[in-house]
Amino acid sequence: MTHPVSPLAVTLPEMPPLPGVRLGAAAAGIRYKGRTDLVMVELAQGTTVAGVFTRNKCPGAPIGWCREALKGGQARGLVVNAGNANVFTGRAGEEAARRSAEAAAKLLGCAEEEVFLASTGVIGEQLPYERIVSALPALHNALTEDTWHDAARGIMTTDTFPKGAVRTAKIGGQTVRIQGIAKGSGMIAPDMATMLCFVFTDAAIPAAALQSMLGKAVKTSFNRITVDSDTSTSDTVLLFATGQADHPDVPETGGPALRDFARALSEVLLDLALQVVRDGEGAQKLIRIDVEGAVSHGSAEKIAMSIANSPLVKTAVAGEDANWGRIVMAVGKAGEPADRDKLGVAVGGVWMARNGGVIDGYDEAPVVAHMKGREINIAVDLGLGKGRATAWTCDLTHGYIDINGSYRS
Amino acid sequence: MTHPVSPLAVTLPEMPPLPGVRLGAAAAGIRYKGRTDLVMVELAQGTTVAGVFTRNKCPGAPIGWCREALKGGQARGLVVNAGNANVFTGRAGEEAARRSAEAAAKLLGCAEEEVFLASTGVIGEQLPYERIVSALPALHNALTEDTWHDAARGIMTTDTFPKGAVRTAKIGGQTVRIQGIAKGSGMIAPDMATMLCFVFTDAAIPAAALQSMLGKAVKTSFNRITVDSDTSTSDTVLLFATGQADHPDVPETGGPALRDFARALSEVLLDLALQVVRDGEGAQKLIRIDVEGAVSHGSAEKIAMSIANSPLVKTAVAGEDANWGRIVMAVGKAGEPADRDKLGVAVGGVWMARNGGVIDGYDEAPVVAHMKGREINIAVDLGLGKGRATAWTCDLTHGYIDINGSYRS
Repeated sequence: MTHPVSPLAVTLPEMPPLPGVRLGAAAAGIRYKGRTDLVMVELAQGTTVAGVFTRNKCPGAPIGWCREALKGGQARGLVVNAGNANVFTGRAGEEAARRSAEAAAKLLGCAEEEVFLASTGVIGEQLPYERIVSALPALHNALTEDTWHDAARGIMTTDTFPKGAVRTAKIGGQTVRIQGIAKGSGMIAPDMATMLCFVFTDAAIPAAALQSMLGKAVKTSFNRITVDSDTSTSDTVLLFATGQADHPDVPETGGPALRDFARALSEVLLDLALQVVRDGEGAQKLIRIDVEGAVSHGSAEKIAMSIANSPLVKTAVAGEDANWGRIVMAVGKAGEPADRDKLGVAVGGVWMARNGGVIDGYDEAPVVAHMKGREINIAVDLGLGKGRATAWTCDLTHGYIDINGSYRS
Repeated sequence: MTHPVSPLAVTLPEMPPLPGVRLGAAAAGIRYKGRTDLVMVELAQGTTVAGVFTRNKCPGAPIGWCREALKGGQARGLVVNAGNANVFTGRAGEEAARRSAEAAAKLLGCAEEEVFLASTGVIGEQLPYERIVSALPALHNALTEDTWHDAARGIMTTDTFPKGAVRTAKIGGQTVRIQGIAKGSGMIAPDMATMLCFVFTDAAIPAAALQSMLGKAVKTSFNRITVDSDTSTSDTVLLFATGQADHPDVPETGGPALRDFARALSEVLLDLALQVVRDGEGAQKLIRIDVEGAVSHGSAEKIAMSIANSPLVKTAVAGEDANWGRIVMAVGKAGEPADRDKLGVAVGGVWMARNGGVIDGYDEAPVVAHMKGREINIAVDLGLGKGRATAWTCDLTHGYIDINGSYRS
């Protein structure tokens, strides 16, 4: 099942070589025919790693593998396959993961637990790891520094466009680069969508500091996007620091020296996260939701996500209807403090309701025009405090039903 | 916008007169033309009342009115209008509610706070309460004991069929009746769906005992159904006991004498709740989800609702795809204790997966046949404990997008 490219697609940026990273993609025939489905990345000695994984309680075998491997804080390789998620595959699935890591470790000359894994695709079927093991040697031989675009394509499942982001940051006056690739929200026809994101930097950053920054950056990027409120069993964000850049040493715990790096990392993650939303199943419009005036940031976040997850808000946007009534409903159902008589709602920058009622005679024309566009902005002011948060989602369209409701067997 | 009658519709049962209840419906022209949109119910002196309302933090004015009125525990009247929800209407909305209650109280010869109110329909527009006030006298004059079907139709918005349920119960050897009407899950085109449910009995039950039973019965009926996870600002369940039946006195706090009544009440509420799901927007299939083996009943309930609210599960059912992978995902995302390697999933009574893996060679034929039917059963066994719960939902189809994504302005 091939889907047309999302109307919200953006172009893959130029992705230059990053010192300490060699990568490549191969067609291992795991499920797809005639396309790449296996990506390998070799990382320089001394590379540190941080990771954030799905909170789903039934995660895939690669998630378990990565959580264990992460304890060492060191990485030399990454192997990603598309077409089979290695989820709900029991002991055999764990064995398949171990075998893949073992084969990569042998080629890379490192310990198994320095190899990270991610799988995405159909679930409940055994991963044909022999195909990975037999494809790896040739793939390893062909690794280069300038195959980022191939890697971005190789991790796709039914994503309609490849996703990448690049930023630079200063550490102690020296410029370092952060660049990453992601996949998401396409379907392994018709199984579940998965978000995978791999970010690399040439900076030298201790694993603990890396983990702390990654955790924070994920909170305001990948944890603030939603396509359909469902949580994949394989969601993975990994951040690798190859340490090849020449900058002053960074303390174990990070600190002020990493402030600019943290900013750039957040930008890369948000850029990739928004590309995932732009490729949301059936998405025709990107929706940004800004909540302010909540009693706390945490409260604002829950309200923003409640709006972002509301099927009634998302179908209204699909219908180009600035339906503030549904927005009020979604605020109320979040269960967070809200006072109906202080609530305000704006669409496209025009306040339609304030202090618990419609603004008589507000100018409808710019709102109607805004709703016809590709990028929709919704703002809510709770009028209670200083809490604020932003979330992103896409509209809910017939395309979503087409993609997810098609008969499999 | 008129929608075809749901393929899951059931027929309104015979609803005989209930001692102490006189009711009727009128066309007050609140929003609709050429149909009834105002329902009035007169209740015998001494009627006790219990109520459960939406948890939405931005509820409509009638919810605020009912919560206050409920403190008295006594009811003499109920006024329900369709076409305007009186939500997000500020002080003027509260005034409109008060005026409606006042007008009804005058006709019924009772205190304002003995009149209960419910409104459903468009939100953010002022309720034209003058139309209610001027329609009430003639409506009051025409109240009879045998217009239950008219009332069931008068509270509809874009429901595709009227909803009613009747049961009998024994209190101290005497037979009493419980019968109710409900509306739900149609849309006030295209504003939000609202569930309203009004249940009446001729039993004599103190308000405290009534409230306690209603709270319990709602937990396993209306709180276990979901159409799209959105929570209306007007959801209301009211239970009135007219005290006209001749049975031994019931203690203030209820107790064993009410055991059979509680059972019948739960049946009435569940019957009505399932009718609401059967009229879910775009519903083509009714889905029942049984969860067992969870660590507790509460945990089972969360897992059942997580499956019921999953768009990926609901679109799979729409596509007649017994996609147990998505069910596993929905179990995992509930955040409740689950062990991948103990999990089992059955569809239509056939176990497709056990102990964390597909059952090799399970019989697909009955599963495929089951998925083609109107009523789909999903069962999940966590294999951890004795917690169990059941939830109901409907599939997610193009009809849902059609109804909710149509352009309003």
